[in-house]
Amino acid sequence: MLQQLKNRRTIRQFSEKKIDEQVLKTLFECAFRSSTTGNMQLYSVVKTEDQANKEALAKFHFNQPVATAAPTILTFCADFNRFKLWCEQSKAKPGYDNFLSFMTAAIDAIIATQTFCVAAEAQGLGICYLGTVTYMAEGIIDFLKLPQGVVPVTALAVGYPDEQQHHPQVDRLPVETFLHNEHYHHYTDTDIKNAYAAKEALEENQQFVKENDKETLAQVFTDIRYKQADNEHFSEALLSVLKKQGFL
Amino acid sequence: MLQQLKNRRTIRQFSEKKIDEQVLKTLFECAFRSSTTGNMQLYSVVKTEDQANKEALAKFHFNQPVATAAPTILTFCADFNRFKLWCEQSKAKPGYDNFLSFMTAAIDAIIATQTFCVAAEAQGLGICYLGTVTYMAEGIIDFLKLPQGVVPVTALAVGYPDEQQHHPQVDRLPVETFLHNEHYHHYTDTDIKNAYAAKEALEENQQFVKENDKETLAQVFTDIRYKQADNEHFSEALLSVLKKQGFL
Repeated sequence: MLQQLKNRRTIRQFSEKKIDEQVLKTLFECAFRSSTTGNMQLYSVVKTEDQANKEALAKFHFNQPVATAAPTILTFCADFNRFKLWCEQSKAKPGYDNFLSFMTAAIDAIIATQTFCVAAEAQGLGICYLGTVTYMAEGIIDFLKLPQGVVPVTALAVGYPDEQQHHPQVDRLPVETFLHNEHYHHYTDTDIKNAYAAKEALEENQQFVKENDKETLAQVFTDIRYKQADNEHFSEALLSVLKKQGFL
Repeated sequence: MLQQLKNRRTIRQFSEKKIDEQVLKTLFECAFRSSTTGNMQLYSVVKTEDQANKEALAKFHFNQPVATAAPTILTFCADFNRFKLWCEQSKAKPGYDNFLSFMTAAIDAIIATQTFCVAAEAQGLGICYLGTVTYMAEGIIDFLKLPQGVVPVTALAVGYPDEQQHHPQVDRLPVETFLHNEHYHHYTDTDIKNAYAAKEALEENQQFVKENDKETLAQVFTDIRYKQADNEHFSEALLSVLKKQGFL
């Protein structure tokens, strides 16, 4: 099982095979058994399998090819709507229209998502996270008809890996990079150099720098992939989504 | 493996046995192989094993017994500090002092945390999430000496289960409750009643209502466990932490 976790790779090309309803249900049983704050289970999942719906939804994922390549797209949402309805039905006054409650539900949702991924991979499925959910959450909310109290926090493309394709395992920083003993260990220049040296030396990353006409790999991130202006624009959009959905 | 995920339970009483350094490293290798936005790996983990430090840290977890009962406490943080240092060393201008970047790093951190949990449980360890991290993040930041760009998002108590104790598996809502097909399914009164009926009927939950002198189970949540005034107070505190750490 640890080998599965260590050997995993993200899948972006899928076979035509659909995911059986019963298989999905089993994976959700695993996902929803994960830890959850106060056993409140503050999440919902919207499944998109209809081709036209997948294409419409993909617009809010910058039309990434993976968003239409997989048979199933699952949008995982922080959901206080259901819990609030229960409170109101039970003569209890819910007090969850605030930022802490959003974070609580978002964490619940992400934990369930990741357990789903581990379970899916154990069953031979492959997954790709669509991190773009937090960029255009407003469009996703409208399209999926999410009510107040519900915010999409992540999504997965899921299906059986296309066996004709090579699915490479990408690099990771050394494990020690992330670990701090008793207190946060402040990184020296040498620590940073050592942490990123192997990544920067990779043929594919050097190629990436060259293709993008940059001087360093970090510049590919700051100037092309995750730019300040975009981050600021989508931050405003996400904060206004939290307001609109009743969490701020 | 699916059986492990379905049968899991949260552990709050631990044996005296420490977790071997090498075992922990293997679990982190699994955790840090999880999906991460743009392969940026925007997280850090601070390990607390020293008894005095555990007791000091427990104050920020409302002195929950589990926070000192486990041999190891791991605080998982959203971390853009390391990535920013790398950018600055690489003549790249980081633009990650905004809310979207916080959410990206927080999601990365939670995904890694949950993979850690699954791996730990596969090795016979038990875990308990300390959801209290987001309540008193400021105290945790000071105590663990977290720099700008770093915010704790969750924590785990980890150790070997105390075999003398019974570790019950708590209830969960029916799987169907969370699933929406193509679009969000708006819950009727009957849907909500059906979803929560089994939970409300549980002997231990009826006892819980009685002990707290309440009329309904939902009131135990709204009036005692997760109160509006507390949620609002800790929301303000968390937003001011995001400002202080440079994400808002």
